[in-house]
Amino acid sequence: MPYAMRPGTISLAGGYPAQELFDVDGLTIASTQVLARLGACLQYSNIDGQASLRNELARLSAARGLHCNPDTELAVTGGSQQAMALLSRVMLQPGDHAIIESPAFPNSVQALRYTGATVHTVPSGPDGVDIDALDELAARIKPKIVCVVASFSNPCGATISRQRRLRLLELAVKHRFLIVEDDPYSELRFAGEAVPPIMALAEGEARNWAVYLASMSKTMAPALRIGWLVAPPEIRRRCVGAKAADDMASSAWIQEVVAQYLANGRYEEHVPRIRAAYGLRCDAMAEGLTRELDGRITFSKPEGGMFFWARLTGEVDATRLLPYAIEHEVVYVPGKAFYADAAKADLHAMRMSFATMNESQIAQGMQRLSRALDACEANQPVSISLAA
Amino acid sequence: MPYAMRPGTISLAGGYPAQELFDVDGLTIASTQVLARLGACLQYSNIDGQASLRNELARLSAARGLHCNPDTELAVTGGSQQAMALLSRVMLQPGDHAIIESPAFPNSVQALRYTGATVHTVPSGPDGVDIDALDELAARIKPKIVCVVASFSNPCGATISRQRRLRLLELAVKHRFLIVEDDPYSELRFAGEAVPPIMALAEGEARNWAVYLASMSKTMAPALRIGWLVAPPEIRRRCVGAKAADDMASSAWIQEVVAQYLANGRYEEHVPRIRAAYGLRCDAMAEGLTRELDGRITFSKPEGGMFFWARLTGEVDATRLLPYAIEHEVVYVPGKAFYADAAKADLHAMRMSFATMNESQIAQGMQRLSRALDACEANQPVSISLAA
Repeated sequence: MPYAMRPGTISLAGGYPAQELFDVDGLTIASTQVLARLGACLQYSNIDGQASLRNELARLSAARGLHCNPDTELAVTGGSQQAMALLSRVMLQPGDHAIIESPAFPNSVQALRYTGATVHTVPSGPDGVDIDALDELAARIKPKIVCVVASFSNPCGATISRQRRLRLLELAVKHRFLIVEDDPYSELRFAGEAVPPIMALAEGEARNWAVYLASMSKTMAPALRIGWLVAPPEIRRRCVGAKAADDMASSAWIQEVVAQYLANGRYEEHVPRIRAAYGLRCDAMAEGLTRELDGRITFSKPEGGMFFWARLTGEVDATRLLPYAIEHEVVYVPGKAFYADAAKADLHAMRMSFATMNESQIAQGMQRLSRALDACEANQPVSISLAA
Repeated sequence: MPYAMRPGTISLAGGYPAQELFDVDGLTIASTQVLARLGACLQYSNIDGQASLRNELARLSAARGLHCNPDTELAVTGGSQQAMALLSRVMLQPGDHAIIESPAFPNSVQALRYTGATVHTVPSGPDGVDIDALDELAARIKPKIVCVVASFSNPCGATISRQRRLRLLELAVKHRFLIVEDDPYSELRFAGEAVPPIMALAEGEARNWAVYLASMSKTMAPALRIGWLVAPPEIRRRCVGAKAADDMASSAWIQEVVAQYLANGRYEEHVPRIRAAYGLRCDAMAEGLTRELDGRITFSKPEGGMFFWARLTGEVDATRLLPYAIEHEVVYVPGKAFYADAAKADLHAMRMSFATMNESQIAQGMQRLSRALDACEANQPVSISLAA
């Protein structure tokens, strides 16, 4: 969206983390330590990842409540996106069925679709995926996998409660589907109580039906392209085989930098800093929406992550408002971009990120949005065309 | 293969470049330059790659004779393996047909197979793929893509001549298939005359039927995970879409390091060094084979790359010899590992890499191989079991 790049425009559109919050010092230190032994880090990595990093990521997963064997259950991937793509590839083929919540991150839907499988959706809301609708649909179509973001979902910002996570595991066992939790955001919690990953709650047979995907992109930096998966050994083995055919392995160099960063203890120091900063930005967005747009936009305030999912209450829909918003130098993403099934899209919904703008920019953005909505409702002429 | 890791064993088995030849200094300088502006390099990259790197890679491609537009024809990938995987994904689906030379690199075959398409093979030898056999097969099965390594192929070490490259382009236009050249090795030429990439020889309509894949893994370092593709704009566009669903983008950080390294002029200084070193190692292997195993093993000496494809002339096949070789502390890969169609495998063939061992190790390796062959032919007892 080239308009979002105009200087002065307040972009609430991207799914990027805040650049000024990257721990450049910590990564420089880790990188310099690795540079001193660079020769050995320039060769091909093990396909499943460097042992040093797998051990650190197993430790980090355990801190979230998910204990796993770094050699048989955990593998390093190119962000959680690659984990999703690999898992889709080894689980699905044409004729198979998969379920993803709706709305959902479009690249996740795309990873499922590239397999040739049929992708179905179940509605999701402020409490996450509709469990009863999932039960009914799963009984009917016998899906191989069901994908959710259980903590601070993109775009909804929703979190699935512990009790509902346990119900998801029951459904997975009952219908024999793999429940896949993509979890890039759970450490960005600035309110409420932490809930363990779904796989961490699995007991007995349920552990065979759960997979956990995670990423360093939102907490450390996207450019590392480091994520990981935790899966039953046989599924993990097949994902590693698919990774060899996909990109051979992730960068040993970057893996060692991340392992060093984690071993240095910088991660535990860094995450609380961004958590606090995002909490303030989230507050600023909630306050700005209430102050400037009360009654005209409804929203649920998330307890973490990067996104507000808001809804225009009047006649104007989010696509019609967008050129006015751009003209007023504020940008968001119309909600319909996140529906795998366009016919079911909520045309009044919009996704607004509070991650990359500071509190005063967010406050100003809400003012601009209010004026844009005035202009749109008044049917004023608008200079921006999105037809291109 | 855990045996290959025993201290003292001379491994001719891997497809790894020589670690002691990595330009650690040059990469450290480039990395340090990038660390100084790390903040901006930690964010998500453009899916098609950083502009700085695309420009450098277009310049490098042009130096090989292939001129292209860095914005519409070139995209950065996670090694040439990811380029092959993406291209396979956008070109093939179940019911489609693809052709690859035989023998070939197994991960390339696997990338084709993951699409659900049917993979056919055409015999390849010291001159590369059998063009007449390809013509006949393509007429019969109407393949969507045909994959070759035209310079110093893995495992054969074969190079396709300019004249035969032109014939491949004629066949591509005639049968309307995409000719895909995977080219990780062409800059490792230490003898003979350079031949331009197939796509560089395409004129008129033929340019629409050619794709070029390349990699920094063999010339700079595998851990960069940087490769690139050059393709007609519409195919490149679809590959970039598939990359978003595959891993979002390659690391902006590493891309900037590689761009900086290229801009620093280190690449042009470095490549002649490894080229010369590999040339000496190739000579050592040819001399060792002739001195120690004359008449018992035949081979074609390659003009570049990393591999000898050799053939046992006696009764013993390469799989039967392997435990004896391991017992004598030398390891190679039996040729059958490289046949997509196991029924067509040459069981007497073996792949030997001369890249990672120095000349004296290679000479010693050939002595050990000779003694292993003596022991095997004499049916002596062997302590190594490969049954695991």
